[in-house]
Amino acid sequence: MKYPEAIQQLIESFMRFPGVGKKTAERYAFYVVNHFDETDTVTFMEALHRVQNEINPCEICGNLTDKDVCDICNDQTRDRRKILVVEESKDVMVIEKTNMFDGLYHVLNGAISPSDGVGPDDLRIKALLERLKDETHQEVILAMNLSEEGETTAMYLHRILKDTDLLVTRIAYGLPAGGNISYADDMTLLKALEGRKKY
Amino acid sequence: MKYPEAIQQLIESFMRFPGVGKKTAERYAFYVVNHFDETDTVTFMEALHRVQNEINPCEICGNLTDKDVCDICNDQTRDRRKILVVEESKDVMVIEKTNMFDGLYHVLNGAISPSDGVGPDDLRIKALLERLKDETHQEVILAMNLSEEGETTAMYLHRILKDTDLLVTRIAYGLPAGGNISYADDMTLLKALEGRKKY
Repeated sequence: MKYPEAIQQLIESFMRFPGVGKKTAERYAFYVVNHFDETDTVTFMEALHRVQNEINPCEICGNLTDKDVCDICNDQTRDRRKILVVEESKDVMVIEKTNMFDGLYHVLNGAISPSDGVGPDDLRIKALLERLKDETHQEVILAMNLSEEGETTAMYLHRILKDTDLLVTRIAYGLPAGGNISYADDMTLLKALEGRKKY
Repeated sequence: MKYPEAIQQLIESFMRFPGVGKKTAERYAFYVVNHFDETDTVTFMEALHRVQNEINPCEICGNLTDKDVCDICNDQTRDRRKILVVEESKDVMVIEKTNMFDGLYHVLNGAISPSDGVGPDDLRIKALLERLKDETHQEVILAMNLSEEGETTAMYLHRILKDTDLLVTRIAYGLPAGGNISYADDMTLLKALEGRKKY
C-alpha cells in the first residue's frame, strides 16, 4: 500500500528541503491536501515558477535580484567606499534589516571548503577583485560566518588583498547578545578572548 | 529593503505550513533559489497541481485517493467484517504500513472539538452509520488519538453504536514501546493503569 502517486510525488519534493525528513514531508503534503484551496495552490506554483524564472544574481554584487543589477548596487545614495563581503545572498538581507550598514555588498556564493571540494575559483572572488579595481572602493569588510570554512575564506581574501591600498577589516566575533559563557562553544570563547579590549 | 517579490511570495507560501515560521520559510525559499533547477521546480509544481486536481476522499471510506473508490475499499481479499475508524487519512497509511490489519477503514476527517467548533455533523459520522447498515460489517474498531478530542469522539461513537448488533472495540492505550514511566504524561499513565491486565 502506497500513497496515491500525486501525494507521493509531493512528499518527495518536500523531502528535498534541508532538514525535512519523511515525516515532515508527509505532514506538509497532507497539509496541502487538506488545507490548500485552488487559489493557495496556484499562488504557491506561481511563486515557484517566478523564482525559477525571474531571480538571478546581481551582475555586480551577486546578491539575488529580479533585475540585472540589484537595488542596492543601483542606489546612488549608498556609501560606495565600503564593500561588505558575505557568503550568501541571505546574509545581505540579515544585515540590511539592521539598517546599520549603508555601503555595498559582495556575495561570494559560499565559502572555501576543501572537504566539500569548494575552492577559491568556485566562489565569486575573481568578480570581487575585478570590482575592486574601481578606486571608489576603499574598504573591504569581511563578514564570513564563524566556522572553519568562513575562517579559511577570510584568511584567503586577506592574503590576496593585504598588499593593495584597500583597508581590509573583519567583523567582530565573540559572545552574542544574551550569550551565556557556560554554554558557549570553544570557537566563540576563543574569538571572545582574542577580541578582548582594554576596559 | 525587501526580498525580490517572487522570493517574498514563495516565503509566504511556505509560511502557511504547520510549524514553519519566517526563518524556516526563508531557508526553504533560498533552497529553491540556490539548489532547484528547472526540472526540480517543474516536478514540484506538477505535484502541487496534481494533488489539487487528482486527490479526493474515497466515496466509501473517506481515505484520500486518486480514484472514486480507494484501493483498500476495492480490495476484495480484505476482511470486510471489520471497520477501523480513524481521525485522519494519514492514520490509514500508518496502520497499513504495519501490515497488521486486513479489514476496512473509515476516516472521520477530524475529531469532535467543541472549543474549535467541530461537532459530530462536521465529521464523516453519518457516512459511517450509512455504511454500517450493510450487515457484512460486524466490528467497529475505534482508533482515535489519545487526546481530549479523540476521547470525546470515541465516547460519542460508542454511545450511538452501543445498541446495535455491532461489536464496538477500541484500540489499547498505554505506555508505548521504549516508553519510560518517569517521563510519561498523566493521560498515558491513566490509560496504562486503566488498561491493566491480570499477569
